[in-house]
Amino acid sequence: MRRTSRDIRTANRHEVLRHVIAGAPAVSRQHLAAATGLSLATVATLIGELLHLGAVTEVGYEDSDGGRPRGLVAVNAPGGALIGVDVAETYIHVALFDLSLTVLASAEAELRPEENEPAAVVAHIAAAVASVVATAAIPEDRVLGVGVSMPGQVDREGGVSVFGPNWDWYDVPVLDLLAEHLPYPLHLDNPLRACTVAELWFGAARGREDAVVVNLGTGVGAGLALGGTLHRGTSNSAGEWGHTTLVLNGRPCHCGAHGCVESYVGAPGIMQSLRELSPGSPLLRPDDQTATVEALGRGLADGDPVAVKTVRDTARYLGAGLADLVNLLNPEVIVLSGWVAAGLGEPLLAEVRAGVAGRALRRPLASTEIVLSPIPTNPVSLGAATFALEGRLAARPRLIRPKADRGEG
Amino acid sequence: MRRTSRDIRTANRHEVLRHVIAGAPAVSRQHLAAATGLSLATVATLIGELLHLGAVTEVGYEDSDGGRPRGLVAVNAPGGALIGVDVAETYIHVALFDLSLTVLASAEAELRPEENEPAAVVAHIAAAVASVVATAAIPEDRVLGVGVSMPGQVDREGGVSVFGPNWDWYDVPVLDLLAEHLPYPLHLDNPLRACTVAELWFGAARGREDAVVVNLGTGVGAGLALGGTLHRGTSNSAGEWGHTTLVLNGRPCHCGAHGCVESYVGAPGIMQSLRELSPGSPLLRPDDQTATVEALGRGLADGDPVAVKTVRDTARYLGAGLADLVNLLNPEVIVLSGWVAAGLGEPLLAEVRAGVAGRALRRPLASTEIVLSPIPTNPVSLGAATFALEGRLAARPRLIRPKADRGEG
Repeated sequence: MRRTSRDIRTANRHEVLRHVIAGAPAVSRQHLAAATGLSLATVATLIGELLHLGAVTEVGYEDSDGGRPRGLVAVNAPGGALIGVDVAETYIHVALFDLSLTVLASAEAELRPEENEPAAVVAHIAAAVASVVATAAIPEDRVLGVGVSMPGQVDREGGVSVFGPNWDWYDVPVLDLLAEHLPYPLHLDNPLRACTVAELWFGAARGREDAVVVNLGTGVGAGLALGGTLHRGTSNSAGEWGHTTLVLNGRPCHCGAHGCVESYVGAPGIMQSLRELSPGSPLLRPDDQTATVEALGRGLADGDPVAVKTVRDTARYLGAGLADLVNLLNPEVIVLSGWVAAGLGEPLLAEVRAGVAGRALRRPLASTEIVLSPIPTNPVSLGAATFALEGRLAARPRLIRPKADRGEG
Repeated sequence: MRRTSRDIRTANRHEVLRHVIAGAPAVSRQHLAAATGLSLATVATLIGELLHLGAVTEVGYEDSDGGRPRGLVAVNAPGGALIGVDVAETYIHVALFDLSLTVLASAEAELRPEENEPAAVVAHIAAAVASVVATAAIPEDRVLGVGVSMPGQVDREGGVSVFGPNWDWYDVPVLDLLAEHLPYPLHLDNPLRACTVAELWFGAARGREDAVVVNLGTGVGAGLALGGTLHRGTSNSAGEWGHTTLVLNGRPCHCGAHGCVESYVGAPGIMQSLRELSPGSPLLRPDDQTATVEALGRGLADGDPVAVKTVRDTARYLGAGLADLVNLLNPEVIVLSGWVAAGLGEPLLAEVRAGVAGRALRRPLASTEIVLSPIPTNPVSLGAATFALEGRLAARPRLIRPKADRGEG
């Protein structure tokens, strides 16, 4: 879709709310204007809309060095609840947030391999959502929306899992099925875009013009936050960096091609590199990616030479793949996210930076930072809840008035 | 830079003018509103600004099936002249356009290898510009701007060639030097972005949300037109797809890395593939890329097996590199531009489409067209002139009034 004035207004509304959240405990309109580059009049209009939506609240005044005292606003944290659902291959993680995106309750349910039918998965999601609503003791009408992240390719407008690679799902109408259990506004997208939106709102991409969020897990991908907003592509499937070629005719990839980035730097690819280097290594836990990456992380800390070499080789592949993103997109920042990035941490980052520096062009390299995600909680459920927040903010503000305006106060 | 309401107004002004140009000989505001998705009120405001800028003109009325007759507008073709300069390694091509971007005059000057000093190149550019102004018999004050495309990395705000790989230029202040010769507003960028803007305004990317313009020549690159505008990146160096890795540890590339896309599908890379396949082939013209690509094009037409195999191998590499763009960016269209694409034409396109289909993911592949550039003239000088047009359109419209308004009529 072509951008319209309405899109830019929505983007500006997001931007102002992000800065209100970042400016906790309270922030003036003047500060928001300076921070966003928007005019004070525009900020005042947008804050008016956010007040009407109940997303922010007036919290007093600050002195302005002899001038008129300035009104301060803050996020209206108790104004509603948002729920984020991270559906992964082996678990469902659900978190309930207030409007400042602080976790009020969370739940995790195991998904057993045999429970991969849509009806079973949807029932699990619904039960987990109900449990966090009960734990947080939030009335149903205060839940403003539920965002669900499903692996694979999704049609977000239709709420359909177009292709779920872990369970071989094709065209499953996830949101229609969920709507039979849950009375809340529902939003669907995938983990890559959820992570990216989480970084854009609350993490290392906040306030950056062009950022790439690289998710390192079983699969890998690159969420693109260009011009301050998520680049989705024509069919909402941009970001499949894991399936770009690194080694023509290289390792076979589960996508059917050969030599994809994912086949070298996804967790199974890292296990393969470890196996090729040292087939009998005690670091290798067959059929357990998580345990193997944890063992590699500990091995790095202990200076185990096989762990060091495996991570160095991985960083060489990863550095080449990231240099491609630097050269093609010229971003301000690349954020490494996902459980593999968290598990290998700073030692991986140092090797990766060296790998990128060895391959990227001088000019784009000079303007790109590479950092680990600073988000301390599950970024996927945080991002999924943020989709629910964005859905709420897309509402036309005049339709949702505070109760006092409706003569009910 | 973050997008502001001003940016979106500029983008909308461009969009409306593009549709006025496409709607020749004349178009109504109602048609423009339908074509752009903007409101009729917004279109009316933008057309008012374009009238003030002298870029469009009122040309009469059309019947509207019984309603009020509708005012028609058209490009004000004779309202001014724009000049585009394509500086290449061995030549300078200059074209002078009217405001409908129709060529009124053009000139080409050879650049000899020894004439690679900034002062010599700038003097050549100035002379070529002066010659097209004289040929077209345009008064100096009707020249609204000159856009210059220089190979390599450029700082467009400063008008500096940061790095010109063909002549080993570093930090040459091209526009400051040119301003000593030419009294016109000057704009600098590189051929990749010039081609991309030409496609966005006049070619296969027009009206598309997300397009990639792949320039195939001695060097190769991918201009990114995302969200309907050029994605420049943080330091105006996005698009270096030629220096993304296709074959880790593959052919050495002049950038210092190995296995870059450019080392396989740039003209010297194609010559290398031909040489490896058939060292004594009569198709191979040592030290003459242009003649070799022309010979390959003729060989394809004649069914020469060495030409067919060379182009098939090239298309395999190119297909893998384009599949990366499809998977990462999920564009609506990929446009093949540049002299190598023009020289190998439809046979290359057919092989490339097959190569991409064999590697790209199903969902993004289904939404991506791959086409040859439909622009019949030099797209680089057209795009360079378009930068001058965009510079003109960025003027605050109220400052530039038609003469009649100033009491001079």
